[in-house]
Parts: sequence; C-alpha cells; structure tokens
Amino acid sequence: MVETQSPIALHPDIAMLAPLLGTWRGKGQGEYPTIEPFGYVEEIRFGHLGRPFLTYRQKTRAGDDGRPMHAETGYLRRPRPDRVELILAHPTGITEICEGSLTIDGDRVQMELDSTNIGRSSTAKLVTALGRTIRLSGGTIDYTLRMAAVGEPLQHHLAATLHRD
Amino acid sequence: MVETQSPIALHPDIAMLAPLLGTWRGKGQGEYPTIEPFGYVEEIRFGHLGRPFLTYRQKTRAGDDGRPMHAETGYLRRPRPDRVELILAHPTGITEICEGSLTIDGDRVQMELDSTNIGRSSTAKLVTALGRTIRLSGGTIDYTLRMAAVGEPLQHHLAATLHRD
Repeated sequence: MVETQSPIALHPDIAMLAPLLGTWRGKGQGEYPTIEPFGYVEEIRFGHLGRPFLTYRQKTRAGDDGRPMHAETGYLRRPRPDRVELILAHPTGITEICEGSLTIDGDRVQMELDSTNIGRSSTAKLVTALGRTIRLSGGTIDYTLRMAAVGEPLQHHLAATLHRD
Repeated sequence: MVETQSPIALHPDIAMLAPLLGTWRGKGQGEYPTIEPFGYVEEIRFGHLGRPFLTYRQKTRAGDDGRPMHAETGYLRRPRPDRVELILAHPTGITEICEGSLTIDGDRVQMELDSTNIGRSSTAKLVTALGRTIRLSGGTIDYTLRMAAVGEPLQHHLAATLHRD
C-alpha cells in the first residue's frame, strides 16, 4: 500500500503530474459564517498504482490541541490533456466530484476545479457545492477551497500551504 | 499515514468494528453480461484516525498476469448502532454511498448495504446502482458486490474471500 515506493512505473498519461507525488505537510486556516475561524495542520499524500490516475489522501489536525479533524481520500484523473477530475470521499458522509482545468508550465501545476456532483448520506450535513484551486510551484502546494453548505452560498472556506516532507 | 499502527485510541463508537482493522488479502471472481469472467487478487485495508469511522482502501490485480485492476478508497461510518454507511471514491470517476444494516454477534460482523447515491464524472461509465454484502467470521472476510451498469439491471458482479495478512 506504499504506492509511491512501488516499483510500478508511472502511467505515461499522468507523467506530467509526477511533481505532485509524495507526502506534503503544512498549515491552513479555515473560516465560514457558521463557525469560529480555526487553524489546522495538514498532511497530503499523492501516490499512484501504475494506472492513469493519482491516489490522493489527506488528513488534518487542529492547530491548537492537535485533535484529529478532517480527512479526505480519492483519486485525481486526467481524462484529457488539459482537464482533471477529483473523485473524493469524505468521512462526514459526503462524496465529491470536482472537474476543471489543468495548466502545466515546467514544474508548475495549476488546477481550477468546481463540483459537478456532491453526494450525501442520509446522516450527512447539507454540503451542496465545492470549488478548489490547487497550485504547485517552487516545491510548494497552495490550495484554496470554496464551499456552499447549510444554506450559505459558495464562498471561501479553507486556504493552506504545504511543503514536501 | 499508517493508520492502524497509530497510537491514537479507537473511537468508542466504532470499537465493535475493531475485528475489521488491519490488512486482508485474498482472491475473487468477477462476472457481468458485458465482459468475460475474470479472477483477481485483492488487498483490503481497514484503519482508523481516532474518530468515529474506519478508513478503507482496497486494490486488485488480475489473477492471470498481475496487472493492476480496480481500486477503491473511502470511509465506513456507523451513524447508529445497527446502521453503517460506506462512503467511497472509485478511480473510474464514480462515487458511491451505500447504506444498510450492521449485525454483530461476538467477533462475527455482517453488513448488508445498498447504494443511496452514485455520482459520475462527465467521463465515467454509466454505473447506476451497487449493493454489497460483507461478512467477517472466523478470521475471514467474504463479500459479494451487485451492480447495475451500462443498461444492465442490478445483478451479481463480484465475490471474494480474504484472510488477515
């Protein structure tokens, strides 16, 4: 299960996403009209299984006392050279499909994604839309996440910066 | 990211699911009206992050030549004592929410799950419903998976038996 240390070769369709592979750690800030602002520490891991997608998983802890907070897991697909799809499960009972543009310039990678499908289990909170901007540049990942939930319109929710472990 | 070796204590709400924790390996058989029957080898891993859900991921390889085949990743929730929710992402561009019953008798665990939500990216195949029966008994996991896809009605697709690694 240690995908990135596998002897399997990276599939050529995702070779240009190789700069994302590995474990990343950093800090983020969250805010939303219905909650108090909060800081968090995050670990993100991109791996692969020899097929034309990356594996993705992340987990966060509270910045103050280190208690476990959020987690996500799923896959990053590249169905066309300039398009990406993020297919995710959340332990809050939410599934997320975000689709959008992929721009690569040397070792700089940028993805602009908006949700095309949000699934909710019968006990999940009412999340209705998500949007993500993910940038890799100079060995740093920056992302922002926008969310529409619990009756609030789509708006800024999270921003974080991570460095390669 | 080695969840099961974490020093974090298992959340009490999922303590009765502890028999699932760890890595499982085994073999399965797949069939569907639109494809040739196939055999596969599988690895499943259940872990936890100290919160009231299990982490889940699996991957399969072809039984004949060992090429990578399917993968899934997500979370197993237990919103009520006798109910479970499986929140999954597939690298085929599919998300899956299955909900159903949980029955525990000693170290025997049985889950009967049916999809309540299937999400598809714009490039995914037309999967419309899934159902899963998962049984843990005597140190063995057996599961069957039912699928409705590409115009075919819900029917048997996969069966596998796995043993603890």
